[in-house]
Amino acid sequence: MTINEKALKLHEEWKGKLEISSKTPVKTREDLAIAYTPGVAEPCKKIAENEEEVYRYTMKGNTIAVVSDGSAVLGLGNIGAKAAMPVMEGKAVLFKEFGGVNAIPICLDTQDTEEIIRIVKALSPGFGGINLEDISAPRCFEIEERLKQELDIPVFHDDQHGTAIVVLAGIINALKVVGKQKEKCKIVVNGAGSAGIAITKLLLLYGFPEITMCDINGIINSHSANLNWMQKEMQKVTNLEDRTGTLADALKGADIFVGVSAPNIVTAEMVAGMNKDAILFAMANPVPEIMPDVAKAAGARVVGTGRSDFPNQVNNVVVFPGIFKGALESRATKITDEMKLIAANAVAGLVAEEDLSEDNILPEAFDERVAEAVSAAVKACVKH
Amino acid sequence: MTINEKALKLHEEWKGKLEISSKTPVKTREDLAIAYTPGVAEPCKKIAENEEEVYRYTMKGNTIAVVSDGSAVLGLGNIGAKAAMPVMEGKAVLFKEFGGVNAIPICLDTQDTEEIIRIVKALSPGFGGINLEDISAPRCFEIEERLKQELDIPVFHDDQHGTAIVVLAGIINALKVVGKQKEKCKIVVNGAGSAGIAITKLLLLYGFPEITMCDINGIINSHSANLNWMQKEMQKVTNLEDRTGTLADALKGADIFVGVSAPNIVTAEMVAGMNKDAILFAMANPVPEIMPDVAKAAGARVVGTGRSDFPNQVNNVVVFPGIFKGALESRATKITDEMKLIAANAVAGLVAEEDLSEDNILPEAFDERVAEAVSAAVKACVKH
Repeated sequence: MTINEKALKLHEEWKGKLEISSKTPVKTREDLAIAYTPGVAEPCKKIAENEEEVYRYTMKGNTIAVVSDGSAVLGLGNIGAKAAMPVMEGKAVLFKEFGGVNAIPICLDTQDTEEIIRIVKALSPGFGGINLEDISAPRCFEIEERLKQELDIPVFHDDQHGTAIVVLAGIINALKVVGKQKEKCKIVVNGAGSAGIAITKLLLLYGFPEITMCDINGIINSHSANLNWMQKEMQKVTNLEDRTGTLADALKGADIFVGVSAPNIVTAEMVAGMNKDAILFAMANPVPEIMPDVAKAAGARVVGTGRSDFPNQVNNVVVFPGIFKGALESRATKITDEMKLIAANAVAGLVAEEDLSEDNILPEAFDERVAEAVSAAVKACVKH
Repeated sequence: MTINEKALKLHEEWKGKLEISSKTPVKTREDLAIAYTPGVAEPCKKIAENEEEVYRYTMKGNTIAVVSDGSAVLGLGNIGAKAAMPVMEGKAVLFKEFGGVNAIPICLDTQDTEEIIRIVKALSPGFGGINLEDISAPRCFEIEERLKQELDIPVFHDDQHGTAIVVLAGIINALKVVGKQKEKCKIVVNGAGSAGIAITKLLLLYGFPEITMCDINGIINSHSANLNWMQKEMQKVTNLEDRTGTLADALKGADIFVGVSAPNIVTAEMVAGMNKDAILFAMANPVPEIMPDVAKAAGARVVGTGRSDFPNQVNNVVVFPGIFKGALESRATKITDEMKLIAANAVAGLVAEEDLSEDNILPEAFDERVAEAVSAAVKACVKH
């Protein structure tokens, strides 16, 4: 049986990958009186007096909502709320298994930006954080930004920032492997959706001086048509020489390629045109922008993909469980840029110098230190 | 330590009475590939093709939302969304422990009727049912009715219908004990909130010919002021002789008193004025409308209360877990009046004729047959 066949069969057996259970048995009248009436009135009254007590007496402090509108699910596109459920359940499984965080899938039957913002705000009282997931760009930017402003609990769009953090971690280590300085590297990011934009922002923040974004029409420049508002913002801070041209043109003389785009769009010739010791993160799934062996044969030194069957899997599962573990444990009210940078450094730091190699730039998803390290990075940034 | 002290201490230890866990471990790359990408895309695609498949591949079919706006919590009133959380968690505990149903608390930070309706509709894709809880009257009537019309999953307001079903079950058995026929019984329901109104409706549906509703101003009649729209509806179908007067006046010659009102408002004199073999359900909590010993001394034959330390506890925990267990197992799209009547009969039927007595008219909350019997009653009404 293939993985896909097994997945379908197991999903049918599970009928949902999550189980909600009680921490307390209810076998006696006293159990009932404590977990429900009349005893339950006591914590209610405490919270009514001081709403901060909700963290003391309820699940809020260790529970997040995984919210999607089903508009940009995996590579499947706008498949809607119900079809998004298996992904959100899977995400919740990973939050629990890797980060110890209770996560509840909430799939919304609306794709109206304002309505999503209102709904998430309204259902936030019982949740300690909001993980946005698989919401299409550019709506995801506004939804996240507004919720960050209007809520007092952390809001994180994993497709953006989880991806950006693990990419930065991988690049930090890849640069050590090839012996280059960030100040001298030219980067090309191909794909101007939520992940590509968040990656570009974080790499700029980290201090890379020159980033060129490309989309399906080539280099994004001041003459590009059909850019959404966020792409227009990005145009102003990237491609500072305002070059025009194709992806192939952009890659000439580049040091790093980051692809969150489409299968097989990078050729050996393009890699050959990059600087010596090129680094490629070809993360289109399941077929990358270029296969690692082709890229290597054309001169690349370090190649990462989204796949677990090649070296250097760039997988945001090393990020998101620890982000919320740390945020919840420290009662962070925001996930800040500082946290993202320190988390990326923390992930990179888990690969010891002596273990670093062209084929080993990122820790394993199953490395138990990962969530702890990311969590500690987040906590280090929280001022109390 | 008192129960209340224990409850507070345990709530602090638990920090939430619920735990969300994964049905599948994620220890290997294959686990990850099956529970998340790429395998998870398979059930997503099946659901995108045919949305009914969401029941085959996700938790929807065995998961409900317990939704409150915190506007009428226990006897505490309008304490808000956060302070309602301990109750909603407790309810979710009981759904799981008694009915095997996964239940997720959703406490909404809005008390706008239209907004609550929109939000519940929007978050329904991942849920197989909606249990409304502790929402104030008359808003709860419109919210429930509209959601029933507009959703294809069962919606149930437990404060109304759970209470009504267990009261009807108790009355069915109490009538056997005292040897009266429903056709000849006069009933007084005191309290015209969500529970009082739902009880009255169900008792009318069951076939009681004469019901008088009272509120804080006495008998509800065609001259009553300040009635809300639902109370006005009820006025048309109750008190058919359009009597006026106090609760004491209403009780003269009545056979059954149902109180969902306030402590100590029924006196021994009022009970003495009722018909022979009077039945009283004095369900104000924690102090009933009249203490059982006082009522009995004044001539009552059967007295039920909301308390577990007196005989005949009238507790809707014998109802709601089985309602959703049956509805989910049979994929019912509505909780119908027929289901409520059959469920009440099923609950009553669990007390064997030979065990029936003045002090034993209802099954125990912990009787394992209860949820099964209620579930079977619901399923018997589902046409496929």
